[in-house]
Amino acid sequence: MHTTSEEDLVTSTQQANIGVTGLAVMGRNLARNLARHGYTVALHNRTEARTKALVQEFGDEGTFLPAATAEEFVASLERPRRVVVMVKAGAPTDAVIEEFAALLEPGDIIVDGGNAHFLDTRRREAALRERGLHFVGTGVSGGEEGALNGPSIMPGGSAESWEALRPLFESIAAQVDGEPCTTHIGPDGAGHFVKMVHNGIEYADMQLIAEAYDLLRHAGGFEPAELAEIFRAWNTGRLDSYLIEITADILAHTDPETGRPFVDVVLDQAEQKGTGRWTVQTALDLGSPVNGIAEAVFARSTSGHADLRAAARALPGPSREPVADRAAFAEKVEKALYASKIVAYAQGFNEIQAGSAEYGWDIDLGATAAIWRGGCIIRAAFLDRIRAAYAADPATPTLLATPDFAEALADAQDAWREVVAVAVREGIPAPGFAAALAYYDSLRADRLPAALIQSQRDYFGAHTYRRVDKDGSFHTLWADDPRKEIDA
Amino acid sequence: MHTTSEEDLVTSTQQANIGVTGLAVMGRNLARNLARHGYTVALHNRTEARTKALVQEFGDEGTFLPAATAEEFVASLERPRRVVVMVKAGAPTDAVIEEFAALLEPGDIIVDGGNAHFLDTRRREAALRERGLHFVGTGVSGGEEGALNGPSIMPGGSAESWEALRPLFESIAAQVDGEPCTTHIGPDGAGHFVKMVHNGIEYADMQLIAEAYDLLRHAGGFEPAELAEIFRAWNTGRLDSYLIEITADILAHTDPETGRPFVDVVLDQAEQKGTGRWTVQTALDLGSPVNGIAEAVFARSTSGHADLRAAARALPGPSREPVADRAAFAEKVEKALYASKIVAYAQGFNEIQAGSAEYGWDIDLGATAAIWRGGCIIRAAFLDRIRAAYAADPATPTLLATPDFAEALADAQDAWREVVAVAVREGIPAPGFAAALAYYDSLRADRLPAALIQSQRDYFGAHTYRRVDKDGSFHTLWADDPRKEIDA
Repeated sequence: MHTTSEEDLVTSTQQANIGVTGLAVMGRNLARNLARHGYTVALHNRTEARTKALVQEFGDEGTFLPAATAEEFVASLERPRRVVVMVKAGAPTDAVIEEFAALLEPGDIIVDGGNAHFLDTRRREAALRERGLHFVGTGVSGGEEGALNGPSIMPGGSAESWEALRPLFESIAAQVDGEPCTTHIGPDGAGHFVKMVHNGIEYADMQLIAEAYDLLRHAGGFEPAELAEIFRAWNTGRLDSYLIEITADILAHTDPETGRPFVDVVLDQAEQKGTGRWTVQTALDLGSPVNGIAEAVFARSTSGHADLRAAARALPGPSREPVADRAAFAEKVEKALYASKIVAYAQGFNEIQAGSAEYGWDIDLGATAAIWRGGCIIRAAFLDRIRAAYAADPATPTLLATPDFAEALADAQDAWREVVAVAVREGIPAPGFAAALAYYDSLRADRLPAALIQSQRDYFGAHTYRRVDKDGSFHTLWADDPRKEIDA
Repeated sequence: MHTTSEEDLVTSTQQANIGVTGLAVMGRNLARNLARHGYTVALHNRTEARTKALVQEFGDEGTFLPAATAEEFVASLERPRRVVVMVKAGAPTDAVIEEFAALLEPGDIIVDGGNAHFLDTRRREAALRERGLHFVGTGVSGGEEGALNGPSIMPGGSAESWEALRPLFESIAAQVDGEPCTTHIGPDGAGHFVKMVHNGIEYADMQLIAEAYDLLRHAGGFEPAELAEIFRAWNTGRLDSYLIEITADILAHTDPETGRPFVDVVLDQAEQKGTGRWTVQTALDLGSPVNGIAEAVFARSTSGHADLRAAARALPGPSREPVADRAAFAEKVEKALYASKIVAYAQGFNEIQAGSAEYGWDIDLGATAAIWRGGCIIRAAFLDRIRAAYAADPATPTLLATPDFAEALADAQDAWREVVAVAVREGIPAPGFAAALAYYDSLRADRLPAALIQSQRDYFGAHTYRRVDKDGSFHTLWADDPRKEIDA
């Protein structure tokens, strides 16, 4: 009895370093990751069965303190309390935050590790700050596996909360070259903003790879097994990345049921959740052009419109002629893919720059690139180059103009143009490649036909125009304009 | 004295058919348009000076009843009262609606003729309906001149309010072939939604014309004066439209100060207000691909990023070779422009279809095309073809597949491909043409590489996939996947 009493005492005074509430697969894996790194982790879930299942199945991985109620959970945490919320974005997140905020004390920290919209995060952070609590909207990338074995972690929130979370995040994050894939992105919604753009870039990256595959297959005449080898070879070069690696795996895979290439038995309708869309919508609000990402989002939704596709299938295309030199074509596609990828990332980083300016976040773009090198879907050697480019010139208006990428683009442009021209001539849709090239040509243009658009706006709406040769706003009383009575 | 008394009596009992509050240029012109058509129009403005100025300057155009206060204004209206609000979108609109709603009685009608976001209109309509009032969010297109001489009018709101407004709207709207350019679009926010998409299409139309100009100038070698003639000629054919007409005027215009072509002295940075952006953001929410419109919005914002453009100006382009046969090239550009325009409009109408389905508006697409034939910026002969296409097949999934347009696309496609290939090779940005062609090729594709994207999603996120040969959702335990412990 005496012994038991002592044990009870020990148990009741044992404090958790951090708590996780919401133990679906992401929360569960994050809790296990923390426990595996030596942290004592309090556990809570709306239905207690999940909490018990976690302890039963993975209890030997570390020290868990399961709690039956929110009150018990909060009482078990050392101060300042660190509560990680891993529930569905939207109303469920608000409900859980409210439940815990009522139980916490000034200086405590609530971490939202879900995929919240950064504007929701800003709203929540402001409301909780009023109550003396820290709210840390945190991007967690790498899916279920990343959460367990090392994600890329993108926390927003206050500098004070970052100091309290930093040792934990640094130990559970993916490590690349001895550096943890986490950093303090910036105040309030900065973390969720950056995670959103990360996902938008991921959409573009996947679309560009898909276009490269499609062109090689239908203009180049390569079979999936051959393409697997091409992608494996690319993965040893500058395109080295997780997405290229798994593409090779997929193309090498044979469907066991039919014996056909796996990619041919998969229905060609790509699905999506919300973050790619948010990236484009936010870019539009910020006036930050991201046509490469937009084309990727639209390509997915186009693929899913079975009715439109069925109706349009009879529309004529050109007669196809496979390219003469397959090997040379594959090399050109590699260049076109690399150049288009540079554009997609440049656009994404410009969106981050625009968001940082709009919301006063002071985001370190190079550090952002660095923490994407591991733990997330777009992890790639390429991100080291982006880090280096921003290290050399943190204020560069566009990655396209930094020496390393400018040189790659100069080297690629002939091949890039030829590949897009082949797509256009052969009737193979390559909206991502084409949009990236058009953006490249728009940025470097001496004069854009935007002058004509602005003239039209002045003609029909008296919106005025500026001139190339002097300052000021001007309006022309158009000779053939029937509306001379308009007051300009 | 006796006579004066009688006059006073007449004046005090005279009732206005409709009232306009907010007498900036749009409200003023709409009030004048109503008065010119024989309606007695009550006038009100926050500052009374504007009301007085209108009566002083244009009082002889019809019967105006100026009111000094909102109460006086409301008292002067026959029942059901029709109050047209013409103030800035956003908070000012809410404030004015609230001011008048408090003075009105059940069955009265408030019309918002500004460019409100359709979701705001839905919110306002629901709130006023609760109070027994009709709220009619109404698109009014054609700018200041249209408001005065005949706009295209796109009212939402209840069927009952439409019946009360119909005779007035039908008499002040633009008339084409004896038909007024107005119809009841649908309930609540339908009118503002359709006006928004109208503006999005306008962005695309202007961008495509600008690209045609740019290609003819820099690949075709035509000077602006020659281009004016080309556009004038196009305006006598199937491209006949207000925007082509004013483009010819602009290109024919010489800057009086410098003697240079006007288009060359205008700064090449196109501005924008919000509706093009809203069109794309809404399309993303609806899963309706509008890459043609998106490229137009992004092209404007790209043009305005002077810092990016300055940084990228040194990036290399190809060496340019003007096309051999200028006249033949001009004909091909006409075809490419027409084909791209079909795509932009098809995407816009699909967005309206998607919005109508989402919000239960039951919008008549053919009738929508018909009321855009006059009074608005995109007015064109072309819209008669769209009306005819929807009349023949109201449920067509895409205009591209309707006989008239399918034939035009088949006829255009070789030229379209060649023009885009020229743009790509010559380094002339044509994002609108390229996006339209990629959309065309996506829709008619037998197989899209979306199958690879969906495979990637299954690989890294266990998102599952569907198959071409049987129903159901499937997940592959990827051979090289290190995450076998994921529960699918």
